[in-house]
Amino acid sequence: MELSIIKIGGNIIDDEHKLAAFLDAFAGVPGKKILVHGGGKLATKVAEGLGIAQVLVDGRRITDSETLKIVTMVYAGTINKNIVAQLQARHCDAIGLSGADGNAILAHKRSHATTDYGYVGDVDAINTSLLTSLLLLDKTLVFSPITHDGKGQLLNTNADTIAQELARGLSSTFEISLVYSFEKSGVLLDAENDASVIGRIGPAYYQELKEQKLIFAGMIPKLDNAFTALRSGVAKVIIGRAEELPFLLTGQAGTTIVHE
Amino acid sequence: MELSIIKIGGNIIDDEHKLAAFLDAFAGVPGKKILVHGGGKLATKVAEGLGIAQVLVDGRRITDSETLKIVTMVYAGTINKNIVAQLQARHCDAIGLSGADGNAILAHKRSHATTDYGYVGDVDAINTSLLTSLLLLDKTLVFSPITHDGKGQLLNTNADTIAQELARGLSSTFEISLVYSFEKSGVLLDAENDASVIGRIGPAYYQELKEQKLIFAGMIPKLDNAFTALRSGVAKVIIGRAEELPFLLTGQAGTTIVHE
Repeated sequence: MELSIIKIGGNIIDDEHKLAAFLDAFAGVPGKKILVHGGGKLATKVAEGLGIAQVLVDGRRITDSETLKIVTMVYAGTINKNIVAQLQARHCDAIGLSGADGNAILAHKRSHATTDYGYVGDVDAINTSLLTSLLLLDKTLVFSPITHDGKGQLLNTNADTIAQELARGLSSTFEISLVYSFEKSGVLLDAENDASVIGRIGPAYYQELKEQKLIFAGMIPKLDNAFTALRSGVAKVIIGRAEELPFLLTGQAGTTIVHE
Repeated sequence: MELSIIKIGGNIIDDEHKLAAFLDAFAGVPGKKILVHGGGKLATKVAEGLGIAQVLVDGRRITDSETLKIVTMVYAGTINKNIVAQLQARHCDAIGLSGADGNAILAHKRSHATTDYGYVGDVDAINTSLLTSLLLLDKTLVFSPITHDGKGQLLNTNADTIAQELARGLSSTFEISLVYSFEKSGVLLDAENDASVIGRIGPAYYQELKEQKLIFAGMIPKLDNAFTALRSGVAKVIIGRAEELPFLLTGQAGTTIVHE
């Protein structure tokens, strides 16, 4: 059975019109599907409004306990429930979940030798039995990037990671297309030219492009992650613009990363 | 099959220790169960922090669009997800829901001849098929008092009403005990004396108590609601202190309102 797992970022969430257009397209995606959303500027706005200072260590934002409260409010509350209500209005029967709900995503607080990242969760396990049950009830799942440690602590987890872990966890049950929405049209041969998108990349072609230094350095971690997902059982990974969602899934837009 | 539907109010949510003790007891309740939580002082605190003024009309708080954002954040985000994580830590497999999730509770914006209550929802329908499926998967459901209108609009709905509508909607499938937590030990013969709690009230006894003016006037709407719930198919309604939950369900504490 096919399953599409689609991750959208803050650029879509922050723009009411882009979000509405994306949700129109998402509601129209046939078959079983999961949406993973990150945060957007709203969390920063709420934190500023409440006078909660962002703590940066070595240029990285730290999720202290006050920041965790804000992201739980904004991601699992405002953003998640608004997306769900808007999908329901589009006759897409969505249920919003955090990793704590039904123990969907179990994580542990990241420990690092020198930096305390605060309440940041690294994923330990996906509850495939729950998620499969809900998908078989024909529910569309909408995940906020909040997990828990099973001991009562909520944790902030990167939305890209959540999408990847869901894809990996569910890959033995479903044939998975994992879509990362992105601010460019896909993987480009010329970083300045959106028309130079590469339609399809397999491991051999990737190796060739890397050797010839034809891949923009910033894309390499994304592509490495995509190949890691493929090795863990995901059928294909697609990178492209959220606005082009229907065409991403049919291979008419974006870059599809495949085993061969 | 038995189902307990338990509503807790702000006095429990606002007090970390009371909430922890309540969740210990709730996790221990055998069988299928639903928790409905209201808000607490946190929503007011967040609104004040963000400089959002409460709008009162005729002494009633109005849910304007800014207030709706706050209650969605705080009720469906912070409070709901923290309760779920704390129940998971107690090995109670909880899923947090708003009325938008899976179209669980459909409502419409209240219309009133003279007062605009803002984004307040009156319940139209409970999705009993979804809720039954989740309960049969052995999930405990945790409802925040947020509903939706099916057209993309979230709405603020009274938590007592949500508990009552869930009980009514599920009463053809389950034998329901509906528990309203309360700041007193139950229905009292002497409003000043917590030891004067009436253990059990049926319609005839209620009539007698009313005729003899032995019921505190403030209790009458609560009791009338309880009898309405019984007439709609709910097996029993229990009013008492959340802290005494295990004893409320066995009839050893609180007031149980029954058909006979």
